[in-house]
Formats: sequence, C-alpha cells, structure tokens
Amino acid sequence: MPKLNLDWHLGHHQNKAQPPAKFIPAKVPGAVQFDYARAEKLPPYWYGDNFKQYEWMEDAFWTYRALFPKPDLTAEQRLFFVSKGIDYEFDIILNGKHLFYQEGMFTPVCLDITDELRQNNEIDVLVYPAPKKPGAPRDRTQADQTCKPAVSYGWDWHPRLVPVGIWDETSLEIRNRSHIQNVMIEYELNDELDAADIKLMVDGKNLSGCFYNWTVTNDKNNPVLREKGTIAADELTVHSKIQNIELWWPHDHGRSALYYSNLKILNRTGELIEEKNSKIGFRRVKLVKNEGARDEPASFPKTRLVPPMQLEINGRKIFCKGSNWVNPEIFPGQITRDTYKTLLTRAVEANFNLLRCWGGAIVNKDAFFELCDEKGLMVWQDFPLACNEYAANPKYLGVLQQESESIIKRVKQHACHVIWCGGNELFNSWSGMTDQSLALRLLNAQCYRLDPQKPFIYTSPVMGVGHGHYVFRDDKNGGEVFQWMPKSRHTAYAEFGMPGPASVEELKTFIPPEELFPPKPGTAWEAHHAFNAWEGNTWLTPEIVEHYFGPAASLEELVEQGQLLQAEGYKCIYEEARRQKPYCSMALNWCYNEPWPTAANNSLLNWPAKPKPAFYAVSKACRPVLASARLPKFSWVEGEKFTCEPWILNDSPEPVAGGKMIVKLVSGKTEQVILNMDFDDLPADTNLAGPQISYVLPRLEQNRFQVVLEIKDRQELSSSYTLLYRKK
Amino acid sequence: MPKLNLDWHLGHHQNKAQPPAKFIPAKVPGAVQFDYARAEKLPPYWYGDNFKQYEWMEDAFWTYRALFPKPDLTAEQRLFFVSKGIDYEFDIILNGKHLFYQEGMFTPVCLDITDELRQNNEIDVLVYPAPKKPGAPRDRTQADQTCKPAVSYGWDWHPRLVPVGIWDETSLEIRNRSHIQNVMIEYELNDELDAADIKLMVDGKNLSGCFYNWTVTNDKNNPVLREKGTIAADELTVHSKIQNIELWWPHDHGRSALYYSNLKILNRTGELIEEKNSKIGFRRVKLVKNEGARDEPASFPKTRLVPPMQLEINGRKIFCKGSNWVNPEIFPGQITRDTYKTLLTRAVEANFNLLRCWGGAIVNKDAFFELCDEKGLMVWQDFPLACNEYAANPKYLGVLQQESESIIKRVKQHACHVIWCGGNELFNSWSGMTDQSLALRLLNAQCYRLDPQKPFIYTSPVMGVGHGHYVFRDDKNGGEVFQWMPKSRHTAYAEFGMPGPASVEELKTFIPPEELFPPKPGTAWEAHHAFNAWEGNTWLTPEIVEHYFGPAASLEELVEQGQLLQAEGYKCIYEEARRQKPYCSMALNWCYNEPWPTAANNSLLNWPAKPKPAFYAVSKACRPVLASARLPKFSWVEGEKFTCEPWILNDSPEPVAGGKMIVKLVSGKTEQVILNMDFDDLPADTNLAGPQISYVLPRLEQNRFQVVLEIKDRQELSSSYTLLYRKK
Repeated sequence: MPKLNLDWHLGHHQNKAQPPAKFIPAKVPGAVQFDYARAEKLPPYWYGDNFKQYEWMEDAFWTYRALFPKPDLTAEQRLFFVSKGIDYEFDIILNGKHLFYQEGMFTPVCLDITDELRQNNEIDVLVYPAPKKPGAPRDRTQADQTCKPAVSYGWDWHPRLVPVGIWDETSLEIRNRSHIQNVMIEYELNDELDAADIKLMVDGKNLSGCFYNWTVTNDKNNPVLREKGTIAADELTVHSKIQNIELWWPHDHGRSALYYSNLKILNRTGELIEEKNSKIGFRRVKLVKNEGARDEPASFPKTRLVPPMQLEINGRKIFCKGSNWVNPEIFPGQITRDTYKTLLTRAVEANFNLLRCWGGAIVNKDAFFELCDEKGLMVWQDFPLACNEYAANPKYLGVLQQESESIIKRVKQHACHVIWCGGNELFNSWSGMTDQSLALRLLNAQCYRLDPQKPFIYTSPVMGVGHGHYVFRDDKNGGEVFQWMPKSRHTAYAEFGMPGPASVEELKTFIPPEELFPPKPGTAWEAHHAFNAWEGNTWLTPEIVEHYFGPAASLEELVEQGQLLQAEGYKCIYEEARRQKPYCSMALNWCYNEPWPTAANNSLLNWPAKPKPAFYAVSKACRPVLASARLPKFSWVEGEKFTCEPWILNDSPEPVAGGKMIVKLVSGKTEQVILNMDFDDLPADTNLAGPQISYVLPRLEQNRFQVVLEIKDRQELSSSYTLLYRKK
Repeated sequence: MPKLNLDWHLGHHQNKAQPPAKFIPAKVPGAVQFDYARAEKLPPYWYGDNFKQYEWMEDAFWTYRALFPKPDLTAEQRLFFVSKGIDYEFDIILNGKHLFYQEGMFTPVCLDITDELRQNNEIDVLVYPAPKKPGAPRDRTQADQTCKPAVSYGWDWHPRLVPVGIWDETSLEIRNRSHIQNVMIEYELNDELDAADIKLMVDGKNLSGCFYNWTVTNDKNNPVLREKGTIAADELTVHSKIQNIELWWPHDHGRSALYYSNLKILNRTGELIEEKNSKIGFRRVKLVKNEGARDEPASFPKTRLVPPMQLEINGRKIFCKGSNWVNPEIFPGQITRDTYKTLLTRAVEANFNLLRCWGGAIVNKDAFFELCDEKGLMVWQDFPLACNEYAANPKYLGVLQQESESIIKRVKQHACHVIWCGGNELFNSWSGMTDQSLALRLLNAQCYRLDPQKPFIYTSPVMGVGHGHYVFRDDKNGGEVFQWMPKSRHTAYAEFGMPGPASVEELKTFIPPEELFPPKPGTAWEAHHAFNAWEGNTWLTPEIVEHYFGPAASLEELVEQGQLLQAEGYKCIYEEARRQKPYCSMALNWCYNEPWPTAANNSLLNWPAKPKPAFYAVSKACRPVLASARLPKFSWVEGEKFTCEPWILNDSPEPVAGGKMIVKLVSGKTEQVILNMDFDDLPADTNLAGPQISYVLPRLEQNRFQVVLEIKDRQELSSSYTLLYRKK
C-alpha cells in the first residue's frame, strides 16, 4: 500500500462558494488555527489570554488544497484518498468536482479517485465552520446536537477554542484493484479461559479468486494458528481455534500478553498484494454486582439494586485505580504517538490500571489504544457526549449512528478496552438526559449490536456511583475530605477532584511577570482557571489554603501549600476508596492530564506531562500493597488526642506475608513510635484494618508533622502523611 | 380471505416419534389439559387441590390432528395454515412431512401448504413438553431460559399448572397468489398535535402490478385520507398527511377518538382480492422527569437523578391510576373477547386509566388491545420475563429476539399502548439481573429499532419506583399502612398489595365444606393461597385480622373483617399516592384480577370477574375528584385525640369550583361535625390540603365509626372511611 503524502496549503473564507484569498502552508494532521498562527506569527495561544485572538477562526470556512501529478498506475492499481479523521464537517473536491460530504470527525474517509484523475490534480478539503446550535449561549450547549467533543466550547479547565481541520493521518494510497476494506477479528474464550474460538472477517473489493494466508503468533514469535485458502467472494470469514492461550491481564495483575495476527492477500497468480497486521489480547470482561450490593433496602416499598460497577477480568475482580483522561492537546491534530507514550508511561508509574476517556474530549487516535494494549492499561471509553441534553432530532441521531459505529469498530478490537459509556454526567440536573433519551438508547443498541460482550453504561454517574467532591473542604458538603470520604458509600468513585496550583516554574511560562503575585481574578490566573472556573474561587481556592496556612507571603509559599493540600487530599480519597472495597470497586480522580497550562486544576500532570507533587502522592496511594492510615482530620493542636487507624491495603492477586507494622509521629528530628503491631498473612486482594490508635499530642518542634507507617524490612510498603500542627 | 376451520383431535405420547395411542376431541384455541379433562371427565382443576391431577400433562408430547379434503382452488389461489399462537414449542407436519418448527408462543405461523396438498390431508401440530431448565427446582426458575410466561410454574396466587397447546385463532385460509403479509401504519404528530404525517407500509407476495386503495375515516365516518395507486413491488410505502386530527385520550382525560383505516388490494384486472382494516388513535406518549426529581442529592459525591416515571400524553402529565393485570385464566386458550370485555368494563368502572400487563403472564390477545383502544385504557406492557435471572445463552436470546419482534409489531400499533418494560422485578435480589444483562439490552435495542418513540424501562421497579408492601401491617417494616405510606417518597407505586379473602359464597364453590371453618394450612385454603403463599401467613393473614378484631366466631365474620382491612388499606395507598403528586405520578395495586379462584389474595376481583368490597373502595379512591382524609391509624380508643387531614384530590384536567367541605364522625345514628370549611376554586390536576383536625373521641355507640367527608351539594365527591373504636 504505497502512501503518497500531499503537500497541503490552507486558506480561509467567509462564504462556502468564495475561494480563499490567500493560501498558507498547512501541517497535516494538524488544525487550521495552528497553521494560521504559525503563518501569521500569532503569539502562542497558551500564554496569557492570547487564545482570544484565535477565536474567530472557528466561524470561518477553511479550504485545504494540495496539487499532485497523476501517479503511474498499472491496470491493476487504483488511487485512493484516505483519511482517518477530518474535524468536523467537510466536502472533498477533486479538480473542481464535488466528490464527498461528511459530518463527523470519527468516521474515516476512503475514496477511490482513480476515475477522476487528470495529469495534474488539485484536491480540496473544504472544512465548514465549527457546529453550533443556533441561538444557544456561547458555551457547551452549542454542542448539544453534534458529535464534536464539547470541551472546546469552553470548560472549567479549557479555554473557549474550537479546533477544526484535518486531525488524523491523511494521504493518497495506491491499492490493488483487489484490496481489503475492513478486517475484524473476534474470539470467544472457553469457560476455562485457556482456548478460544477465533473468527477472522474480511471485506474488500474484487477479492474473489484471491488467496489468503492468515497466521497468528504469540509474543515469543511462535505460530499458534495458520489458515489459508481461496477467497470466494468479496467477504471472507475464517473460523479457527487457538489452544493454550496466554491471557492478557492489566499490568498489575499479570502479563499483558499480546498475539500478532498477520493476514496476507495474494492475487490469482500468487503475488502478495496486501498485508494487514494487528494485535490480539485474549481476555474476558464483565461488569458484575459489587459485593454487598445485593442487600435490598431494608423495608417496603422496595426499589431496585444498585447497578453493577465491579469490573471482572478473566474471572477475577479488579479494583480499578486510575484517572479521567482528557484531551492532551487543545488541537487533536497535534497529538502524536509520543504524546501518548509519555503520558501512558506516567500512568503506569502512577500505579493506575484504568483510564476513563472522558466524553467531553475526543476519542483518541489508534496509537493510544495500541500503547494501552501493550502497557496493560484498561480503558473506559465514553462516547462524545458530555454535560448536555443531547438532541433527539433525526439529523443528530443519524450522525451519532454513523460516528458511534466507527468508534465501536475501531476501539472494540483492543484488549485494553473494557467499558463503553454513553457520556459524562448525562443523568445529572445540569444535563437532564434520562434512560429514555433516544441518543443513549441508540448508543446502547449500537454497542449491543456491534460489541455485545462488552459492558455498557448509559453515563457516569449511574445509581450508586459518585462524582465529586472537588475541593479539600466545603462546610456545606460534609466538611473536610478527611470527614466526608469515610462516611461515603459508593460502588465507584468515578470522578473526584482536589485542586492544586502549577509549579512556580510552570506558572512563569504563561502568566506575565507583573500578574504573578498575588494571584488575582481578571488576570492570566483567571484565563488559566485559577478563579471563577467552577463554584467558589476555583481552582486556586485561596480561602481554603489560607484557612489552614494563613496568608501566604510569596508565590512559592502559596504554591507549596496548595500542592500539599492536593497531595494529601488525593491520598485520602484513593486510600479510603480502597478501604471501602469490596462494595467499592473503583477510584478515578478528576483529572489526569490537561490540554494546556492551567494555573490551578485538579490534574495530576501539568501540560503537557509534568507531574505535580500530587502525582507522586497518588502513585504511592495506588501501590498494589501499602501501609495506609485513616486519619480523622488534617489540622491538629498540641495536647489534643491524635487518633489514626492503620491499615494494610492489598489489591494485588498475591497474599501479603505477615510481619510487623510500626506507626510513628515525626516532627523535625524527633520521632515517637505510637504503634508496634504484629500482623498475620493477608490473603490476596484483601485489606487489613488495624486498631484505632490514640495518642495525646506533645509539644512538637514544627508546625507540621508526619504520620509514618512502616512494615518492618519492607520499606517499599511504607507510607507517610503530612499534617498540620500548632502549639496551644 | 375465506377461513376453513378444522375439526381437531388430540392425543398424548411420551416419545416424539411414537404416535398417540388415542385421540380425543380438541377445542381450538384451547389447551391440552382442558381437552383431556373434558374427555376423561377429570374433576375441575379449580376445586380443592384437583389441579394436582393435571400436572403430568405438561411433560408429555401432544399431537393435534385434523383431516381435511383439498379445497377447490383456482389457479390464482393458495392454501395457508395460519395460527396466531401455539404454546410453546412445536412441529407442523402435513401428510407425514415435516414442514415447520418453532419455539415461541407469540410469533404467529403462516405456512403456504398448497404444494403439499393431496386429495385428503392430515395435518398435525405436535406440541413439545413445557420447557424446563434441566436440573432447576420445580418452580419458576425452570422458566429462566424460555419466553414462556413464568407464572404457570407456580406463584403465590397461581397453582403449578403449565398450559400447552394451541392458544389462539388457528385455521386454514385461502388467499390469492397476490396477498398481503404485513400492514404497518406509523405516524408523526406535528408540534401543535393537530396534524400527522402518516405512513402505510405493506409487504406481501406477488403484489407487483396490483392496485391499492387506502382510506382513513374518522369515527363519524368522514373520510380524512384517500390514497390510491399501483404497487410496483412486493413492498409498498405510502406517505400522506391528515389535518385537523382529533386526539386519542385516556378515558378520564377526553375522548378516545379512533380512526378507521381500510386498505383494499385489487388485482391487475381491478377485482378486489384482499382488504385489511385497522384502527388508529393519534396521541403522543412520553415518559418525562417527575416534578421535584430534578433536585440533586444535597451533597457530594453526587450520583444520578431518579429516572423519569411521569407519563405525558399529548403534552399533558397524567397521574396514572390502575392495577397490575395478570392472566385472567390459567389456560390462555380459554380467554375470549368477552373475558376481556367484562374485566375491562370493570377497570373503567374502577376509575383506572392504566393497566400494567405483568411480565409473569402472557401478552394478551388482540381483542384486549382493541378494547383498551376503545375504552381509553392505557396499557403498560411487560415482556414475558419475571423474577428470574434470565439466561444470556445464544439459544434463549435468539428466541427472545424473535418473540419480542412479534410482540412489538403487534402491540405497538395500538393507541392504548404507552410503555414497554423488560419484565417484572428483574433488578431485585431475588432475580439478580442488571443493566448489563444481555436479554434486557436486547429488548431495549429491539424497542429502539421497532418502536423508538415509545418509552422503554428495563424493569419495574427502577430507581425511585416502589414495589410493596403487601400487608396491612408489618411491625418490622414501618408498621401499619397508615403509617408507612405517608412517609414514603417514590416516583411511582407500581405494585402494592393488600390481601383480602374471597366472599363466603365464592369460598364455598371451591373449598370442601368440611374444610371451610376455621381455615387451616394443609387444606384447600392453602392450595388456594390463604397460607404459605408468600411471607408470613399470607394471604389470609389471620394474625393481622385478629390483631384488630380478636378471634372471629364464624367464616362470615372473618371474611367481613379481612375484606374491610383490604378495602381501607387500599384506599389509604391510592389516596396517599395521589397526595404525593406531582413527585409521585403513578399508583398501581397488585393485582387486578386472578386466573383461578383464590381463597385470599391481593386481587380486587375474584376469578373470573367478581368484585370484592375492595374493588368498590378503590373505585371511589380513584375518582378524578374526591374529598379524601389522611388518617394516622386504623384503631382508636375513647378519649384519644383523633386527628385527620382533609384534602380535595383533583387529577382531572378541569378545575374544581370552590365550595364547602364538611367532615363528620358517624357512629351508628350519631353524627358529629368536626370541620366545616370553605375552599376556593382548585386548578386542574391540583390537590388541596386542608387543616389538621383534632378532636377528642367521645364515647361512641359502636366498635366502629366512619369519618365522612362531604362537599356541600356535590354528593358524588363524598368519601367515607371506616375505623375501629373501643371504649376505655
């Protein structure tokens, strides 16, 4: 399949029919805004409030244009225009002739243009203005009848900046007359999970009379399947079996074994004309009832049980630790395999085993899923609906049908993919969708038709799942995180936040020096979400920081304090969710990454992938096995009775050998052992709750102290919590 | 379409291949048990425990056989074997040749047998034993991978008696070569609800070149649509419009206007060859959010809103009052249009506007839906799943796909049909299905595909909907109905029961005289569900009756007391659910009717259709407008402070004129007015809560007293409640 890359240029116009006045060089994949900024030397969108200079671009038509000579084609060859994604509504025009129209960025384009070729050709991709519901206010509600991700219409951590353009791989391809259009591999594991019935499904053009040669090898390069034969029609289905399967596991539960499928198509004379490679991971996925959730409400009238949120992989219940993944760039065309690789390597380092790909953002490119397959990271995939009441009109439902089919067929093949979800917070008051909403019934029906063995939930949260809270303390909502979290009872915490500022070094890269300190609304701090982003003074929450630490004397002090709250707050939620196992089965913070530099945000990584202190804290809280303290509050006073409950948390599939736990209070150079406890062997995936410790706080050296939990001779299981202290 | 009725005989055999030793006359439609009992003079199944003598029949093969000469057929004519329903798995064999096999009683059969005819013919319908999951205990779990209704496997008000046989209209039909197979009419109302785009879809055989003539007339016989033309292929779609629509309303909200569709097919020479008639009712159905349900849980973490249970017809919110409809006969073949007519006439008399057709029972015959269309009774239709964890195996899902398609296509055309529901109590602990269950996702997808504008719920109860309680008092569950019901907060009460005994006269018809009094377990009382039916001493609940009245001296006394509890208990729930409007939108008791005579049951009608006193009490509680009392308890003592809250309940679409309400206590011949209150005009569909009345109970004449609420000069709005009294 020789690919011919095109040399693209780009111009904008106000009317569809009127050609651009000027063309500038275009990068494909990319975004029109990026190309325009480079050509016209706009200041970077991520500095100060420069993004406002980009806003007009979403309302223009943009024409991509490339010139190319007709390639030499044999009688057996055809030329195709192929694109994995064009954002969002577009025409394709060759030599002035309209060839194709599509609404939807997730459905690939594949056009045979051979019969339209001249000696010298001009191909245009005419991209329409970003979709907006007429009359809607200038926010995400403009996106409530489109499959374009809502986030770019403005979010509490995303500026209003709506990308358009060619966002994924796009080229010309020379293909044989006989060629493959789609390859799908499906399998069914036996009850023992050691063998699979496997099915190869191919459709294409002019395949009748060609030969196929299909092999599957394991990752030690040993063949486990060889099938060959003649193709009778344009569709081919091959049934086979694989024995002695090595299963794919999330990385913290075993090896993420992948098999390699190679399909060769040979023409009638035996020459190789096409070859398709893919990877297969064998695993069984179920969403089952959480333990304890079978208990009925005690009294009549009785309503229903909470829906299942316990993920089971290969028959084993998995406690899911992870995060909400958002778009790693404002412009999806900028995202590369390396973008994903850096972020996903960090996700493994964070001891995460599941990422929820949030419905406000794009469905990621192929490289994301390929890397998750390899790294053993499970993926929960939302469809592109978020926080809106999506329309039930035939036009929108038609595009959603098309886009969801494309998404399902692409994503379902990956071992990493474990849950479909209709979208984000669709059953909450701010969205107002319901189980009756046709868009969601459509998605459920599509998933049932195309991927029936995969769990599907309408939205998150469903009944029993919690979203929030998103601040360290809120006196109207149960007080401090240390107080409300142990009282909470949810099957899954699918979104919880804890805001923290970016580092001083980072802040200086996008906030003008004169605005740096003290942070104020109306400055670049606000443009970068430190103020008026969500409820209260989010996401900097200066009054919460001041509540604990008093007024900060410098930017350095403020950042250190805010980051400490974020780190300790997140540890509290992750570890408490783990203590609530097995009723609770999932802890995913909001959010993992961010698409541009925020001044303060709930993210663990600053754009593009710089860990905040909270990242390392969460990484420790998510270790498969650790010593953990349940703490009743953050701030303590001399002479007060300090209490704490030491636990050993074990989410791993292995038992933990018995031993000795030591709990110490550390302040400066002084240490006080407050518990010295022997514990027995701990079974796999089981926690141990220690005794309640009570200790009258003496006069300490410093205004902070650490609670340190150690397991003797196993330093890697130790944990430390920083708390505040003041003298009486 | 001339129909030729066949003269059927029937015999049983233990092996499929071995023919019956003996044939007996068979009634079609009917059931093998009924025919056998008549032929072999078995005692009636409904007396004592005679049903046990019928049980072996479910495990035999039964062959229906009919002999018929070949009818005179012109070259243009074909002979069909046509059946609306055969229960449950069967072969059709003509002159020894196997023609057809089907599993599923809801999918009609239509076989062209012309080419297999001889001069003299023998047609067999070979019915298999009732389906049972191998190894399951002898209860409803035997039915957890079949589309056969679970009720006949035994229920707390239904004996173990599993019908099999030809249960709906079955005959031979002479049809033209050119004939219709299916006619479907769909419409979409405009926003003003006064005009419709209407679509006729026909498919058939050899229709190409025929002519069609389609007219629609209103119920004053005025034509509102005439379309005609030539049919080009075997499928025909005609689009048209109807203006000045008169809407179909539930009977308590307006006229249930129906239109008549007449479709004529004429052959190429203009002769009428087929005619199809149907009725159309124009209405828009939605299930929308209950008022007040948009309030979020107050604090984080937040879960989802309760799902919508507010039915909206033609843009108007309707408070649904009704009942759970069960199979009116054990043998569905016994059910006739008259069976339905009697019961549905009573349902209108009960002031019900909605019947929930419960998933443990059959989906009713066409006559049921036709009568509900005419009478303005709305229908909630469960699919045939109830209280089991239905399997996810391919065989069951395949039958469910077929059966649900047949059910949807048949039922969706009726104006009366307003809700699809996956089945009964599938998300409760005793069933254990979930939103992930493939059978339910299949049903949701089927309804989305075939009837997308109709609400679909997975099961009842969904979140926020209540089922139960089913007894007058239960100290472990909130005490007396007067106490728990006002504290309850549900969007819908979709099942609540209140048991009462049958009348003495009825009891004598099926309980042997020597067992009549006192009622005891182990007698016909137990066989007819008075004891050990459900929890506790249900459904006679003698200890509850005795708690209030002391030991009963006679059967007459016991029956009167039990029936009083049933009547007053039901009134309390219906009226209290109405007071909880608009958050609450539905009150449906368990159950309306019953399939055989029960000694005690929650039903309002004794089999086949005899009202208990509770029927009349409920009818009064469901009047569109009435005076109603919220009472704190049932039993009072002299000198106690009696309290009561008088209300006016108005569910009607009309306002209620202001006036005067009088509340009296009546005991024997003495009356005491305890409130005399003027009230203002009351808007449509709005309740009025009066003041709390407090009154010290004097010495009364009798051990009961009535609370009587009157609206001056509007006697039809009066209500009366009977309470117990004892002297100090």
